[in-house]
Amino acid sequence: MFPFSDTTLAIYGPGLLGGSLLLEARARGAKQVKVWARSPQGVEKVRARGLADLASTDAREIAEGADFLILAVPVGAMAGLAAEICRAHPAPGAVVTDVGSVKAAVLAGAGAVCRHAGVAFVGSHPMAGAETPGLDAARAGLFKNAACLLTPDNATDPAALEKVDQFWTALGCRTSRLDAHHHDEVVARISHLPHLSAVAATLASFKPDASMAQFAAGGLRDTTRVASGLPSMWREILAENRTAILPALRDLHAVTGDLLEILERGDDDRLLARLEEARELRATRYS
Amino acid sequence: MFPFSDTTLAIYGPGLLGGSLLLEARARGAKQVKVWARSPQGVEKVRARGLADLASTDAREIAEGADFLILAVPVGAMAGLAAEICRAHPAPGAVVTDVGSVKAAVLAGAGAVCRHAGVAFVGSHPMAGAETPGLDAARAGLFKNAACLLTPDNATDPAALEKVDQFWTALGCRTSRLDAHHHDEVVARISHLPHLSAVAATLASFKPDASMAQFAAGGLRDTTRVASGLPSMWREILAENRTAILPALRDLHAVTGDLLEILERGDDDRLLARLEEARELRATRYS
Repeated sequence: MFPFSDTTLAIYGPGLLGGSLLLEARARGAKQVKVWARSPQGVEKVRARGLADLASTDAREIAEGADFLILAVPVGAMAGLAAEICRAHPAPGAVVTDVGSVKAAVLAGAGAVCRHAGVAFVGSHPMAGAETPGLDAARAGLFKNAACLLTPDNATDPAALEKVDQFWTALGCRTSRLDAHHHDEVVARISHLPHLSAVAATLASFKPDASMAQFAAGGLRDTTRVASGLPSMWREILAENRTAILPALRDLHAVTGDLLEILERGDDDRLLARLEEARELRATRYS
Repeated sequence: MFPFSDTTLAIYGPGLLGGSLLLEARARGAKQVKVWARSPQGVEKVRARGLADLASTDAREIAEGADFLILAVPVGAMAGLAAEICRAHPAPGAVVTDVGSVKAAVLAGAGAVCRHAGVAFVGSHPMAGAETPGLDAARAGLFKNAACLLTPDNATDPAALEKVDQFWTALGCRTSRLDAHHHDEVVARISHLPHLSAVAATLASFKPDASMAQFAAGGLRDTTRVASGLPSMWREILAENRTAILPALRDLHAVTGDLLEILERGDDDRLLARLEEARELRATRYS
C-alpha cells in the first residue's frame, strides 16, 4: 500500500534528509527504493551501505517507473532535475515533491517544469534537520513529530496533495497546508531569522576573545547552536528567501537597537517590559 | 572536614541556587545547615521540606557561629545582609561568599562591608541556573561540571580563597580566578549578551504572529530558550552589569546591521564569509 509496500520511491540526493528518507523507506518495506546522487562517490556510498535497490548518477534512470519522487537536493538544483525526471517515464499518476526550505521559488521552478510536462508536483517542507550534514548524519526517526508544511496552490492535483500528505504523516510528521509565499514569510521568522540571530550572537560573543566561552553555561551554547550549521547550505537558503527575510531581519536590528537605547538610558522599567513581553510571547509555544 | 562534616553552613536565600546548595549540604552531611529567608512563607517552605536545621527571617540568628556563609539573594540585597552578618558572631575564621552574576558591584558592596568588620569575603559566580526560579526548581547536581568564577583581589585572605575554591570544587564545579571587572566583561559577553540576543530573537520572530511558532523546529526553541528566564531577575542582572554589557550589545547591534546590509545588497560572498566565521568561532568551544 502507499506510501511503502506498493510504491517505488525515487530519492534525489542522499544527504541528511534524503539519506534519512532512505533509511525510513528501507525500514518500512518500500517496494523499491532508487537513489540519484550527483557524484559517483555519492552513488558508491549508498551502494556500500546497501541503502537502495538502485543508485545512479543518471536522473532519468532513477525516474523510470517511479511512483513517488522526492527532490532532496539544494533548491538551485531542483528545476534541472525536474526537467530530467519529466524526460523519463515515471509511473502513471506519479507525484514529485521536495524538501526545500523555501517554497515560492521551488514552485516557480521545479513545480512549473513538472506541471508543464503533465507530472504532478506538490511542494513540501519537513521542519527537520541537524547541524551535521550528509548521509553519515542521516537517521530513521528524523521526521518524527516534526511539522511538515505543504504548499498547494489552485493548480495542485488534490489526489497528489493527499498522497504527499499521507507520505509525511506516515513518517510521523504533523502536516499543515500553507500558501507558498506565506510559507516563505513564516520560515523567514521561525527558522531563517533565528539562524541569523545565532550567527550574530556568536560573532558578538566569541569574537573579542573566544577563550571566554570556556566559562559559559548552557545559555551561550543554545543561543548560538544553529550557527554551527553548514555555511554553504545556509548561504543558499538565506539567498533564496532573501525577500521574506529582509523585513524580519530589519525587525531584529530594530529590536537590538531598542534594547541598546534602553540600556544606554538605564530605563529599567522599559527593560522589564521588554523582558516580560519576550517571556510571554515565548510561552505561547514553549512551556 | 571542610566543606561539610565539620562545617556549619549558613545559606541566605532558598531560591534555585540557595535551595540547590541546601540539597547538596544535606546530601553531603554538613554538620549544621542554617537558612535565612526574606519572608515567613519562605521559612515555612524550607521547614516543611525539612531542608535545614534552622530556618529564620533573622539574618543575625542564622549567622551566629556559622563557618561558611553564602549569599544567594539578589545582588541589590547583599550589602544589607552582609551588614547584619557582621553584627552577629560568625565562627572565628568564618568566610562569606555569594553567587551573584556580577562581581565588581558585589565586591564594592557586600565585600567591603565584610572586610570593614574583619570578616573574610570572596566573590563567587557559579555558572549554573535554569529558566525556572525558586526552591521548587532546586536540585542536587545543579553545580556539577559548571564553571565557577572566583574574583579575589589584593585584599583577599588566601586561606578564605582556598576554602571557597574547595567548596565549589566539592560540588563538582571547575573553578577559575578572575579579576572582578574582567569577570563582569566576560559574563557580559557569554551570558548577558546571549540573553539579550534571545530576547531580541523572540520579539522579532514571535511578535508579528506568535502562532507561526507552531511550525518551528529546534532552531527557534534553542535560539530563544533563555528569553523565558525570570524578567525581574534579569532586569536586575542587566542593570547591575550595564557598563560591561553596553559595548557587547553595541557589537551585537553592529553585527545585525552588517548582516542586514549584506542581505540588502545580496552580497553572497560576504554572507558566506560571515557564516563561516561564526561556525569557526563557535567550534573553538563546541564540537
